[in-house]
Amino acid sequence: MVVIDINCDMGESFGNYTMGNDAAVMPFITSANIAGGFHAGDPHVMNETVELAAEHGVGVGIHPGLPDKMGFGRRTMDATPEEVRDYVVYQLGALRAFADEHGVTFQHVKPHGAMYSMLSESADHARAVMEGILEVDDDLIYLATDSNIYQVTEEYDDLRAVFEGYVDLEYRADRSLIVEQEKGSRDPELAAQRFVDIATEGHVEAANGEMIDVPAESICIHGDGPNPVELLEAIHDAVDDHDIELAPLSEIA
Amino acid sequence: MVVIDINCDMGESFGNYTMGNDAAVMPFITSANIAGGFHAGDPHVMNETVELAAEHGVGVGIHPGLPDKMGFGRRTMDATPEEVRDYVVYQLGALRAFADEHGVTFQHVKPHGAMYSMLSESADHARAVMEGILEVDDDLIYLATDSNIYQVTEEYDDLRAVFEGYVDLEYRADRSLIVEQEKGSRDPELAAQRFVDIATEGHVEAANGEMIDVPAESICIHGDGPNPVELLEAIHDAVDDHDIELAPLSEIA
Amino acid sequence: MVVIDINCDMGESFGNYTMGNDAAVMPFITSANIAGGFHAGDPHVMNETVELAAEHGVGVGIHPGLPDKMGFGRRTMDATPEEVRDYVVYQLGALRAFADEHGVTFQHVKPHGAMYSMLSESADHARAVMEGILEVDDDLIYLATDSNIYQVTEEYDDLRAVFEGYVDLEYRADRSLIVEQEKGSRDPELAAQRFVDIATEGHVEAANGEMIDVPAESICIHGDGPNPVELLEAIHDAVDDHDIELAPLSEIA
Amino acid sequence: MVVIDINCDMGESFGNYTMGNDAAVMPFITSANIAGGFHAGDPHVMNETVELAAEHGVGVGIHPGLPDKMGFGRRTMDATPEEVRDYVVYQLGALRAFADEHGVTFQHVKPHGAMYSMLSESADHARAVMEGILEVDDDLIYLATDSNIYQVTEEYDDLRAVFEGYVDLEYRADRSLIVEQEKGSRDPELAAQRFVDIATEGHVEAANGEMIDVPAESICIHGDGPNPVELLEAIHDAVDDHDIELAPLSEIA
Repeated sequence: MVVIDINCDMGESFGNYTMGNDAAVMPFITSANIAGGFHAGDPHVMNETVELAAEHGVGVGIHPGLPDKMGFGRRTMDATPEEVRDYVVYQLGALRAFADEHGVTFQHVKPHGAMYSMLSESADHARAVMEGILEVDDDLIYLATDSNIYQVTEEYDDLRAVFEGYVDLEYRADRSLIVEQEKGSRDPELAAQRFVDIATEGHVEAANGEMIDVPAESICIHGDGPNPVELLEAIHDAVDDHDIELAPLSEIA
Repeated sequence: MVVIDINCDMGESFGNYTMGNDAAVMPFITSANIAGGFHAGDPHVMNETVELAAEHGVGVGIHPGLPDKMGFGRRTMDATPEEVRDYVVYQLGALRAFADEHGVTFQHVKPHGAMYSMLSESADHARAVMEGILEVDDDLIYLATDSNIYQVTEEYDDLRAVFEGYVDLEYRADRSLIVEQEKGSRDPELAAQRFVDIATEGHVEAANGEMIDVPAESICIHGDGPNPVELLEAIHDAVDDHDIELAPLSEIA
Repeated sequence: MVVIDINCDMGESFGNYTMGNDAAVMPFITSANIAGGFHAGDPHVMNETVELAAEHGVGVGIHPGLPDKMGFGRRTMDATPEEVRDYVVYQLGALRAFADEHGVTFQHVKPHGAMYSMLSESADHARAVMEGILEVDDDLIYLATDSNIYQVTEEYDDLRAVFEGYVDLEYRADRSLIVEQEKGSRDPELAAQRFVDIATEGHVEAANGEMIDVPAESICIHGDGPNPVELLEAIHDAVDDHDIELAPLSEIA
Repeated sequence: MVVIDINCDMGESFGNYTMGNDAAVMPFITSANIAGGFHAGDPHVMNETVELAAEHGVGVGIHPGLPDKMGFGRRTMDATPEEVRDYVVYQLGALRAFADEHGVTFQHVKPHGAMYSMLSESADHARAVMEGILEVDDDLIYLATDSNIYQVTEEYDDLRAVFEGYVDLEYRADRSLIVEQEKGSRDPELAAQRFVDIATEGHVEAANGEMIDVPAESICIHGDGPNPVELLEAIHDAVDDHDIELAPLSEIA
């Protein structure tokens, strides 16, 4: 039997502003990447999101971002490796406190948006962040979105990293993702088929028809698309049919 | 022999803005109340301040504030008990991560400015905050500035609270403090005398000449006054002459 | 023929966060209260909202708020009259620049949420704000939500003030409004009936059945309720039936 | 007789944080670049700074920055030309309101830090900003720090641009500036000599001893260095000796 995780960004609402539909999505996922209050989220939203995850037995992780709420953390900033490390450590600590408050394990770290891109493009930034995480808590799992980051995680013996895949975006043949400006509806059956392919075979069909390796132990679903619940229901159906077990990262890695 | 703590607000610089003179003050104190990034401070400043405290064996605590950097956390806001609790838990977690990074114990919590006033005036707010702290880490010490808050702390068996006194401000006969708009220079000898009186006798002379009880286990020094180092040097001299030992809260409470 | 204005809060989206449905509501209103970037909105949203208003011939006004995006400007803050005046002048200037960019008249000022409450409760704050506005541009119209503020506006000969009424909230007999925590759907026919009553008779039925005076020259519609467009369509139908003309404040006051 | 302007960044304090010494510097300059509240400054500081400039007959300009107070606007951000234009228009409007409040002419625009660099490196960004400025107020003067930006200003017939020079930094032979990490004290006599050379001859000696053209109508002095007042006193003495007149940009351009 194959075991795999479903992760999704959560807790991106801010004050009176609502984003996504966490209550509808949480029952279908196994790991939640919770916004840290810099690009999205706030302390009250974090608390409620950790509580919601705890109710559903979902593993909680921090989704740290750059300090740019106006740009939703999607604009690269000329910040030093030390600054980025400190932003991650700060947000990581904040989330851990809420995890402790609700008596759940603090499971993983997955950088958001432009911060993720900065770590992917600069090994110095990636190393600073990973060393910061390890000094705070070496039980945390690093959720790696691409090979660049995964390679840097391998420099550290103590760091557990998990590679993730996508089923609601198209891959290019080089395993880069085709990100669309406007998120359209996704075909639930196609997403479910990709999910099964990655989970059971470790590969998926790219946009050009080529079959490519995606050795993922976790699948990321975009909660802010138009139909995430529909996709997740189709995936859960397919999972039941293919002897795949869903479990949080902490039970896999 | 009497043992007493000296606490001081630290880490209030923000980005390019410098406040106070932490490097000069840190060698003379035993507990640092480090700004949590809401009213003052930022992740990088917090990291550097925890590191500086660690180098001097100074106990690190969080000085959480309201989310109002423009007002330096000195303006009361109509925030709910749950919101204030979540602001404290968030900042507390952030500081704990930096404490862990530098391998030092996370010692205490002392709310800042208008947040402190809100807790003093509303027992509901105070209880929400203290229950939040206890759920995260019941080893933390609560540094209580006035009797209102101290009384609320006594409702919780698990909560260790320490009462603090002041020697660089005048007391009224009812033990309230006379806060001046412009901080003038303080007389080092007078501050040192008060320090010895509180430490050894538990009392101090109020502005009207009356002797009042100040049963403090920690003395707060304002690091942003014009001459904090001068005051601290005079206090250290007096301490040497009076068989008083200085130690962080964690070694007292 | 009676002439009356319909005003609505607009431009409350922020970065990636969407609030309300400005594109659907704008065609039905005559004055837009555009968020100033403190409690809601941002420079890019302001620009787009002014442009949208200009396309529909809607009068543009500033909806200045307190610097508290996390609380959506709904939490009173202990800010001085001078601070609040400067927040208003700053946001007013920002909006005026976008109005100039799009070649439209900058029409009015209507404070938001807790800032409005502070002006209503403290005549000192209200005076500071009104004097600030007058010094910048004495052609601006002050949209007054209650009698307290309206009375202060009458102290200034140069200040044009317009009193507004509500049709999607219930009034108490003392003309205060019953604000609900959760905004439910409103009955379009009832809202339209109230609109006609206020426009043609200057009165409306309060929650207790009593008829009360509401001498309003503008009616505020809440764009963030569940069915603002439905209400506005019913109002436009009723307006056509009752010889009422809709026009921006600048063509009334 | 030669006429030249001295400009200096002003109004960079923020809430309780003080930066620079505006009261000491203002009497010696003729144009003030006032922070717009994004990278530094706040509405209350802007108001006070405009008032101080008005008292000294100093021309007021906006010093707009990127929305990154934590980084003091010194970190490039991946923002679009439209976003940057809207940040400039917003801050420009805010300052103009304070200028109107104090009855002084709003004179010029000089982008700060990383925003300036972005405009210098991307003509698309520079054009978006200049077109935004022109649509709001084509009497504003654009203070251009380098040739790239100056060239873009020349595409617009209506835009008045003034080129500025530096006397408290070293030039390279290609007229780029050598910016030091730590600002050391500057030699007042050397600064005064450079000032006279640029004002009267339009050239200055570069770090390698070469004489280079600096056709500046304004000289920028850094108010946050260790001895700006000393430099300014030496410059004023030299100006008196060399038949140079100091005047705000609006009286030159």
